[in-house]
Amino acid sequence: MTMRNKLDVLTDAVARKLLDQGLTLSSAEACTGGLFAARLTEMAGSSRFFDRSLVVYSNQAKLDHLGVKPETLDQYGAVSPETAREMAVGLAKVSGSDVCISVTGIAGPGGGTEEKPVGTAYIAVVYQGQTHVVQAPTVNVDRSYNRNHSVLSMLDLLNQLL
Amino acid sequence: MTMRNKLDVLTDAVARKLLDQGLTLSSAEACTGGLFAARLTEMAGSSRFFDRSLVVYSNQAKLDHLGVKPETLDQYGAVSPETAREMAVGLAKVSGSDVCISVTGIAGPGGGTEEKPVGTAYIAVVYQGQTHVVQAPTVNVDRSYNRNHSVLSMLDLLNQLL
Repeated sequence: MTMRNKLDVLTDAVARKLLDQGLTLSSAEACTGGLFAARLTEMAGSSRFFDRSLVVYSNQAKLDHLGVKPETLDQYGAVSPETAREMAVGLAKVSGSDVCISVTGIAGPGGGTEEKPVGTAYIAVVYQGQTHVVQAPTVNVDRSYNRNHSVLSMLDLLNQLL
Repeated sequence: MTMRNKLDVLTDAVARKLLDQGLTLSSAEACTGGLFAARLTEMAGSSRFFDRSLVVYSNQAKLDHLGVKPETLDQYGAVSPETAREMAVGLAKVSGSDVCISVTGIAGPGGGTEEKPVGTAYIAVVYQGQTHVVQAPTVNVDRSYNRNHSVLSMLDLLNQLL
């Protein structure tokens, strides 16, 4: 399957599960820059489950809207499991949505380091009082592919958890 | 030119103007569902000008993050010039970005009325202390096209104002 096909299949699967279970979904996006929300809301009727996405591209936005701690950004960096966790937990508090997912990563082509190469992405989900934090598979093709791959990893995790 | 070409040309033009003038940009999106932010951040280096996008799909999100008044939603509806204005003004307050743009519309295929058919969209921009509110040209092809057309109208307005 192409990336596009995989995204379509997983988007449909996640949307169906949300609708069947009557759950609402919100996202907090860094590296994907709104791509996750754009994909979910492409579907007619998505307002029945999709609540909001906070595209916190700048660090200040992460502080303002999600209550990420400046110390967390300083100590671990914006692209870290710790920041992903605080983004999802902050989103759950502010939105009250049933399922809250966050993503922070390095889309490239710049910004990679030896420890965190381009394609690195961390995802966190708050669902049923539990917080799940994962590192997505590191994939680096090009910026557009990497961003779509992060969305795919988000959908894949939601599909497993729901 | 195809829609895709037009979007590419206008995205480049707006990004160049923002970078040349050292301006930051934030968005508040309803009907476009993150598509505006996804497009702007597709460009490598967009973090130099793009701050955040608040994808306020639900009405509650519009109240929570942008300070849209419940009375405004009740009296004029979520898809109205008044709501577009409050979204952009609220975004300017919370983000402090130099340029703040909002959009609210009816992407379809459902949700249209005689007064506000599918494809209706209102856009507001706060820039240099002034608030500009416009109704975008009403275009109805299909949901995906309509959403992209709203992004195009947003970029077109920014290109004129900057």
